[in-house]
Amino acid sequence: MATNLLRYRTGPSAGATWGVLDGDGFVAPLDGAYATTGDLVEHGEDDWRARATEAGSVALDDVEVLSPVTTPCRVMCQGVNYREHAIESGMDPDALDFNLFFDKTDASVTGPFDDVVRPAHVRLLDYEIEMALVLRSRVRGPVTVTRENLADHVFAVTVANDLSARDVQLPQGQFLKGKSYRGFCPVGPYLTVLERDEIGLVDELDLTLAVNGEVRQHDSTRHLLHKPAETLTELSTFCDLDPGDLLLTGTPSGITAGSPPAVVRRLATAILGERRLWQAFVRTNLKKPYLVPGDVVTASISHPLGAADLGTQRTAIVAPRDV
Amino acid sequence: MATNLLRYRTGPSAGATWGVLDGDGFVAPLDGAYATTGDLVEHGEDDWRARATEAGSVALDDVEVLSPVTTPCRVMCQGVNYREHAIESGMDPDALDFNLFFDKTDASVTGPFDDVVRPAHVRLLDYEIEMALVLRSRVRGPVTVTRENLADHVFAVTVANDLSARDVQLPQGQFLKGKSYRGFCPVGPYLTVLERDEIGLVDELDLTLAVNGEVRQHDSTRHLLHKPAETLTELSTFCDLDPGDLLLTGTPSGITAGSPPAVVRRLATAILGERRLWQAFVRTNLKKPYLVPGDVVTASISHPLGAADLGTQRTAIVAPRDV
Repeated sequence: MATNLLRYRTGPSAGATWGVLDGDGFVAPLDGAYATTGDLVEHGEDDWRARATEAGSVALDDVEVLSPVTTPCRVMCQGVNYREHAIESGMDPDALDFNLFFDKTDASVTGPFDDVVRPAHVRLLDYEIEMALVLRSRVRGPVTVTRENLADHVFAVTVANDLSARDVQLPQGQFLKGKSYRGFCPVGPYLTVLERDEIGLVDELDLTLAVNGEVRQHDSTRHLLHKPAETLTELSTFCDLDPGDLLLTGTPSGITAGSPPAVVRRLATAILGERRLWQAFVRTNLKKPYLVPGDVVTASISHPLGAADLGTQRTAIVAPRDV
Repeated sequence: MATNLLRYRTGPSAGATWGVLDGDGFVAPLDGAYATTGDLVEHGEDDWRARATEAGSVALDDVEVLSPVTTPCRVMCQGVNYREHAIESGMDPDALDFNLFFDKTDASVTGPFDDVVRPAHVRLLDYEIEMALVLRSRVRGPVTVTRENLADHVFAVTVANDLSARDVQLPQGQFLKGKSYRGFCPVGPYLTVLERDEIGLVDELDLTLAVNGEVRQHDSTRHLLHKPAETLTELSTFCDLDPGDLLLTGTPSGITAGSPPAVVRRLATAILGERRLWQAFVRTNLKKPYLVPGDVVTASISHPLGAADLGTQRTAIVAPRDV
């Protein structure tokens, strides 16, 4: 049975603690102190497996839940990894014969219930719910990951929101900057640790994202174009990995930004030029329901038959503080 | 006077040692052991300043010089940061009103004299000499970096080669993957530590890259479009930084890949479509002198008046080993 671990504190001046969540909304703290998620992955297993949920338990409602992934860490990402999302992004999914990788800086990582500031210059702030893998192994060279040994490389799954400033990402061709502002990667609430014999559940999880209660994204990881094993194999050819690093596996359709089909974009580019095309993109997109201060995003991932529940994160979008 | 520090070992089974290079080609080892570049930056200053170059010195020719930047580390990069390089890349430098950031994975970092494997699927392997800043400060939020406080944030400068698989980077729009294969970032040979009153030298360094002795790139950091202080200020709005991290400041003109002007590309895209345009790009570029196994790249950075000499790296391109 999947185990939900969480990182939390009992007050603003308390230190971060790790605990195990039980089915009744109580958290049993671990005995050990693990400074980083990597420490927990490497040294915490006996501890969290031994947790009885009685002694010293605290109610989940009484604690502040922190990001279950600590920084520094790598935040590796897959781009168009759902067919419908490829189409809404103006791409031909049948022509995408490669796995599209990018990354976010770890400055973007924030807790699952933290407010997120929309930077002053950003007008097209978009959401992207993603299943994130929390990695277990230390990779320093190419490895072959299969469905059979996937659990040697994946410690847990969690919820992530790949928040994106489309007016930086797309007109400037800057995925890294547009997706890495501080707070642009809410993570958690839990590390959902799958047992070895249930690691296949990563291919059967439902994702749901809503803005102010209205569902915008809903799909299943069964539709991932490039599965975790294949993805980690290729990633290892150009990326080192450490325990506690993150791999975000791409977002399904339903984002706010949309792109016309390639053929339309191609003609518009010929007529307008790239710069004016993107100016027109920003202008028309300003009419769409991008995230604005006051909006609340909820993002949930769970197994349809209850075999795992990764929980729900809640992100309030706020304006920059007055200086 | 600038000090050249280096990381080296005296044999294949010896551990890595730090040392100071003197003007006669001898290396004086430091007393302390510093596991990472970050450790050296934070704790090694009294040690390397105290080094007399007599006792225990070894000839530079007798040691194996390692990358002076250890991993894990961040490898942050600037894109089009020289005017002529913007033009050869098919961009209008006057329309580039933003600082273009991307990154490489630290799997790409390798030593200044290591062979680099051209991966089996890569045919358009290109070079990019860059001045790299080795960072000093721990950044966890926005900071304002100026010419006056630049030395609080920059520990040293070094040579880097941003090797790039153009046939991955450009047709797939994958900067991260195309620039991150193992060995794609030779670093060093030295950490050239500038004194506080000579930190302005970062704006006066000459870069020269040659392939098999033929000069391909030659320019001065005085032509950087976005200077280090401005760049670090913006970087801190979306990126955490730690001592020992790298910032590559962009490459001058002279790369092998070239792109037609935007207007030509725009018409060609309209006629051919993006996919066929890139197929044509790869086909025509196969005739250009990209790096092939057997080629040797040398990359040097120094001050024209001798105020600093960052040394020369030498990279032999080799084929993948038979499996």
